[in-house]
Amino acid sequence: MKAAIMGYGTIGSGVAKILRENKDRIVFTVGEEIELKYVLDLRDFPGDPEEDKLIKDYKIIAEDPEVRLVVETMGGVEPAYTFVNAMLEAGKHVTTSNKALVAAKGAELIETARNHNVNFEFEASVGGGIPIIRAINTCLTGDVVEEISGIVNGTTNYMLTKMMNEGAQFDDVLKEAQANGFAEKDPTADIEGHDACRKIAILTSLVAGQQVDFEDIETEGISHITAEDIKYAKAMGRTIKLLARSKKEGDTYVARVAPYLLSTDNTLYHIDGVLNAVLVKGNMLGYAMFTGSGAGSLPTASAVVADLCDMAKHEGINIKIRWKKEKLNLADASKQKNEYFVRAKDDKEKIKEIFGDVNFVDAGIAGENGFITGTLEEDIFTEKKAKLSELLQVIRLG
Amino acid sequence: MKAAIMGYGTIGSGVAKILRENKDRIVFTVGEEIELKYVLDLRDFPGDPEEDKLIKDYKIIAEDPEVRLVVETMGGVEPAYTFVNAMLEAGKHVTTSNKALVAAKGAELIETARNHNVNFEFEASVGGGIPIIRAINTCLTGDVVEEISGIVNGTTNYMLTKMMNEGAQFDDVLKEAQANGFAEKDPTADIEGHDACRKIAILTSLVAGQQVDFEDIETEGISHITAEDIKYAKAMGRTIKLLARSKKEGDTYVARVAPYLLSTDNTLYHIDGVLNAVLVKGNMLGYAMFTGSGAGSLPTASAVVADLCDMAKHEGINIKIRWKKEKLNLADASKQKNEYFVRAKDDKEKIKEIFGDVNFVDAGIAGENGFITGTLEEDIFTEKKAKLSELLQVIRLG
Repeated sequence: MKAAIMGYGTIGSGVAKILRENKDRIVFTVGEEIELKYVLDLRDFPGDPEEDKLIKDYKIIAEDPEVRLVVETMGGVEPAYTFVNAMLEAGKHVTTSNKALVAAKGAELIETARNHNVNFEFEASVGGGIPIIRAINTCLTGDVVEEISGIVNGTTNYMLTKMMNEGAQFDDVLKEAQANGFAEKDPTADIEGHDACRKIAILTSLVAGQQVDFEDIETEGISHITAEDIKYAKAMGRTIKLLARSKKEGDTYVARVAPYLLSTDNTLYHIDGVLNAVLVKGNMLGYAMFTGSGAGSLPTASAVVADLCDMAKHEGINIKIRWKKEKLNLADASKQKNEYFVRAKDDKEKIKEIFGDVNFVDAGIAGENGFITGTLEEDIFTEKKAKLSELLQVIRLG
Repeated sequence: MKAAIMGYGTIGSGVAKILRENKDRIVFTVGEEIELKYVLDLRDFPGDPEEDKLIKDYKIIAEDPEVRLVVETMGGVEPAYTFVNAMLEAGKHVTTSNKALVAAKGAELIETARNHNVNFEFEASVGGGIPIIRAINTCLTGDVVEEISGIVNGTTNYMLTKMMNEGAQFDDVLKEAQANGFAEKDPTADIEGHDACRKIAILTSLVAGQQVDFEDIETEGISHITAEDIKYAKAMGRTIKLLARSKKEGDTYVARVAPYLLSTDNTLYHIDGVLNAVLVKGNMLGYAMFTGSGAGSLPTASAVVADLCDMAKHEGINIKIRWKKEKLNLADASKQKNEYFVRAKDDKEKIKEIFGDVNFVDAGIAGENGFITGTLEEDIFTEKKAKLSELLQVIRLG
């Protein structure tokens, strides 16, 4: 069975490597070899083992009837969307690791695949090597999913872990992460939560069975987290994690990406470094957690190759994925209830006047007060915090 | 689509409950309802919502062409095997939660299903609600699996957690577990590791693609673990877990079920109570871990219903599962290397004479010495320990 890779970067070259090095294993799984025929990339890769397969025009792939399986690892919505769409229209199976494409066009591409009796799969788009998409699509099928909470961005988890372990400031940890290849030159998508937001949009779309627009999800990153916040976290026996969350609320879901202060009894507390983890709660299953490498060339490529094997085994068969194009209106996140950790320059009397009975936290930091509120609706909390004269920080407890 | 349940105990009745209560969700997944037509059980269930579906002769199911999906939740190899075989021969899909049946007859039943173009699935046979079987069959397909380590028995994990937390003796914890329904009246299969042994035999068969006989797996339970061992574990900063393990060794695997002393940096350290977890290492994926409820009516039934949905979506299509009947000869477990924690009445001089440089552990227990050996081959260790005059305990470090 012939395959093509579009985008020969970190993940694409990992896919080629697995197809080469685990050839026997793949033959064993699928019953025949998955043979790489083309690699689409505008760059040259002199000396690369797949150098002779490099092409620069995607139409060569689309028009070659021999190619049955296509990998898209270019990233970004365009031109990835145009290319993927052309492949599906040409009756080829496509797998992608591209969360931006899946979040924006997933429902449509699933429909196009169905219309051409092929498959569009995207295991690697969330959680890297962690098989969370297939778990939702094929394992939690008899369950109503009531909750998803995930650490789905390796860069920010690496940074927060460093800040916790070393008490370092955000900017220093970011520089170190960039130097070590754990953060990109432009880290915005990671540190501002945009990457995590697209991932929870995909997961929520799948459990709801219809389109969740990532623009509708309240998203807060970690660039405002400081070494002082870490001191408070430690004083509370908690850690700070960037969570992407989605909860069932009546007939819809409410979603948020934000840093949370987690206590040790939360299973996500222990997920450190570049690890990712997704906790899912089914109404019958209860909690299940999936942990692993959320990024990296080979772990992510491993998920892409699993899709290739699955699609090869389903040649001529469209696998139903329920994700309708109709947009799901998310529940109002401002009605969610939470406890909040707050730092303010106001004195304790003033704080008690505004918030009533709060728990003050002593982290040995002078000139300010840190405290935990009772459980409040988001918009009531917003009203109250506006009454503080000098608000320094707000982090939700989770 | 009509279904039948054979065996209306804890899991079977859970399956019926999910089919009733999550009907809309299942219609959404499958595209049509999965409707229960028969419940096979020799007992009567007066007042049960499925009372009118009760039958006592399995042939009624086998001979009813309307029934497409059959659930086997009877347990034990016979008569489950006869019944399941009859259903497959009659061209019906079968899912089972029965680890004894799958370990003994999995390869054969997969072949029978293939010959009749139906499916035989068994997600619930290992790890209850944790989707580990499907992860291996559909997600780790491009990877060579190098290692599986699992806490796959909830009863023993509950007991060991209690012993760690309360310092209680084995017999007291067992009585308490039996009183609370966490251990069976005859707990042998759990506490002697037989249950875990069948589960690792199934997982190893799947990653190797051929039959692993559970009788070939070295199996040790936890009934010899004492409150004194727990004291030593704490002194070492470790915990004791019953692990079912399998490691790639050349062209085969080496497997063992035994209690292990785990340090905090082992991710399985944190899996407490009735939770199960399976850690898998792929040569490309690296480590991934799957955690959740390993037992219980609804979590396990949730996995059975996921199989039902999968089989309903694959009507007319046999899903390839690679598990050949030819027996795999496991590698010799006596050649495995390990560090060992040992308790003996011998004095320190004698111990050093036999084992060389060891690390003594002080748990404040008089009249004996606890120590950790260097890394030794199992059979060399066996020779050495025979030289001790009064051996009290051996637990491997993991």
